[in-house]
Amino acid sequence: MPGKLLYAQSGGVTAVINTSAAAVIATARAHGVRAYAARNGILGVLREDLIDTGKESAAALRDLAHTPGGAFGSCRYKLKTPEADPAAYARLIEVMAAHDVRYFLYNGGNDSADTALKISAYAKRSGHELICVGVPKTVDNDLAVTDTSPGFGSVAKYTALSVLEASIDVASMAESSTKVFILEVMGRHAGWIAAAAGLAGQGPDDAPHLILFPEIAFDEAAFLARVKATVERVGWCTVVASEGLKNAAGQFLAEAGGRDAFGHAQLGGVAPVLAQRVREKLGYKYHWALPDYLQRSARHIASATDAAQAAAVGRAAVEYALAGHNGVIPVIVRGSDAPYRWKIAPAPLAKVANHEKKLPRGYITRDGYGITAQARKYLAPLIHGEAYPPYDTTGLPRYVKLKNAAVPRKLAAWAQP
Amino acid sequence: MPGKLLYAQSGGVTAVINTSAAAVIATARAHGVRAYAARNGILGVLREDLIDTGKESAAALRDLAHTPGGAFGSCRYKLKTPEADPAAYARLIEVMAAHDVRYFLYNGGNDSADTALKISAYAKRSGHELICVGVPKTVDNDLAVTDTSPGFGSVAKYTALSVLEASIDVASMAESSTKVFILEVMGRHAGWIAAAAGLAGQGPDDAPHLILFPEIAFDEAAFLARVKATVERVGWCTVVASEGLKNAAGQFLAEAGGRDAFGHAQLGGVAPVLAQRVREKLGYKYHWALPDYLQRSARHIASATDAAQAAAVGRAAVEYALAGHNGVIPVIVRGSDAPYRWKIAPAPLAKVANHEKKLPRGYITRDGYGITAQARKYLAPLIHGEAYPPYDTTGLPRYVKLKNAAVPRKLAAWAQP
Repeated sequence: MPGKLLYAQSGGVTAVINTSAAAVIATARAHGVRAYAARNGILGVLREDLIDTGKESAAALRDLAHTPGGAFGSCRYKLKTPEADPAAYARLIEVMAAHDVRYFLYNGGNDSADTALKISAYAKRSGHELICVGVPKTVDNDLAVTDTSPGFGSVAKYTALSVLEASIDVASMAESSTKVFILEVMGRHAGWIAAAAGLAGQGPDDAPHLILFPEIAFDEAAFLARVKATVERVGWCTVVASEGLKNAAGQFLAEAGGRDAFGHAQLGGVAPVLAQRVREKLGYKYHWALPDYLQRSARHIASATDAAQAAAVGRAAVEYALAGHNGVIPVIVRGSDAPYRWKIAPAPLAKVANHEKKLPRGYITRDGYGITAQARKYLAPLIHGEAYPPYDTTGLPRYVKLKNAAVPRKLAAWAQP
Repeated sequence: MPGKLLYAQSGGVTAVINTSAAAVIATARAHGVRAYAARNGILGVLREDLIDTGKESAAALRDLAHTPGGAFGSCRYKLKTPEADPAAYARLIEVMAAHDVRYFLYNGGNDSADTALKISAYAKRSGHELICVGVPKTVDNDLAVTDTSPGFGSVAKYTALSVLEASIDVASMAESSTKVFILEVMGRHAGWIAAAAGLAGQGPDDAPHLILFPEIAFDEAAFLARVKATVERVGWCTVVASEGLKNAAGQFLAEAGGRDAFGHAQLGGVAPVLAQRVREKLGYKYHWALPDYLQRSARHIASATDAAQAAAVGRAAVEYALAGHNGVIPVIVRGSDAPYRWKIAPAPLAKVANHEKKLPRGYITRDGYGITAQARKYLAPLIHGEAYPPYDTTGLPRYVKLKNAAVPRKLAAWAQP
């Protein structure tokens, strides 16, 4: 089957999604297949806003592999079902047919796997021969089937490292200044990133002393008692809080903090809310940090394991596509924990689409504030190794900005957004 | 002159203050001088809470050089003048005399230089032969005389890198999601760290698009107009805001944001306040980050230039002390910008104590939102090179926790705090 390969990025980006992109493009090139990319994910397909990756130099593609963010633009755009929005699906197929796209690779999370699956089914009905393959990605680590999701290992490493470094700082200051440090991490629905913070310490009095998971309802009195006991025993206390922390009534703590002078819900996440409670009730001097996008774009300290897996799924996705495997996604299969052995295997998109891998309760200690040995066994290999980008003489990494040359349009403009 | 060397750390710690500490101890060892450290800065001297660094292995000292934080504990404690608190000074000299301390090295900022100077003068009057030498340190870069302050180059590198990485992320998301990203950086009184963020971009439309300096009164209307124009032109906008940003009335913006439901001043720094204005007035989706201690403890991406200077001032301080130079501090003298050439020279502590190096107005562009070529020339070499720590098999850096063995006390307990 001749034709082109179309690659698109979707959802929140990661430190290594471009590592997958670079592998996709390099593998397609090696097979003599032209690779297009859609600008801003599925929106670019709908808009016939395509990029010819053939215009990028080999050097640019090498740099792409260590550049964070989504080089072709990502999107937050949820396709409806073909029944609810047949025009969108018809348009996707029209665009792909116009450009002789025969392989569609969608790099994203649960939603994207679902989208790829729907497009595959729709294409079959429409008579346009199209192979749809997923490429897994998400810092949330909530993809089913796969051992881990590319992107997670790097944010896990960044988070454990940040807890370690900031805690050493707090320990230095605690005698006459800051006694409580709160780090807010991503994870609205699942505490995978919060759990990874637990890798920073080994002993019972190592930081982080308390992890607040979205899976465990926040109990203010118990939390404050723990903080107090930790400060009295250790001299200081590091808390890691998931942005998705909820109280017993199921409300997000970040939204339960009251309203400001203008009557708006208080902004600023869960860390300042917790910090305020600590000050009011315990009187300790505190600091808090909210790295936000810094945690998922920290390519400068990406996990080498994560980067290797991101590249491997990109390569495999192309190979599956060219071999005619439709409706699949390469997943990571763990062979052993220590040493960590893994391989790539295909899984049906249907098994990944719309499933959510939850943090097992057995990964959280019985008291709800830490991680178990089982969690460590799972998490530890994912942050192994440092995939440093090259730096240039400015003292900053050599991150590439692609040309992103547009493919000439062949169709009328898309009528919808 | 026989006797021991006493080293202490003061004020906010940095990514490389232990690099200076390791150099101090190694240099003292090389000269056959016993080195003590005070636990928690000057408090440790007052309390006769001293540490025998001779109990640390050579391997531990090598690891100390790449460990962030203050390994012996720092303090926020301002000594009064000898006139106001003669008992404290008498106690300091009593402790040093009891342990035959003949060299006192104080590693800190303006205040610490002043303290070292006062102790030197008091010792002279008291008849205890003591040589006092400063070791410069501060992420604020506000020390006079020296070209830069060890600690600043690393936070500058972290900040420029974070702006670069997060902005690549925002650029990926902007089409259908986040359009404004705000990074809050340290700098309550001077915009040195904010200025360093400017190194992330070169061209006029590169991030950061707007830097908000504490030196420039915040003009909300002008700020919002700039954000809007940037989003319309570039597609997204990165803002860097100093924690010390003030309005025209001289109030900190972080404290002017209103009161919460409990009547407390709103916590959370300046970034959420700015984000709220952006949402209210412009309707853009935003993200914001506040790295706090992460920025000054990020030893994992320390500037190699900064680390080299931190080691050099540590070595020089010991050499000056042993050569009998009292009341001096090693400073960095810039020979040329590109290539950056520097050397260490002694400066009188009196010239550093209580002076503050301000960010020159000529480093800020006329519009108040960016940095000039002059600023770049000064800042660029300071972030050059990556002083990576070694990592162990856990995927985390090999940061050391010293034994910090106490020196047996010889005196009665100190009566004061």
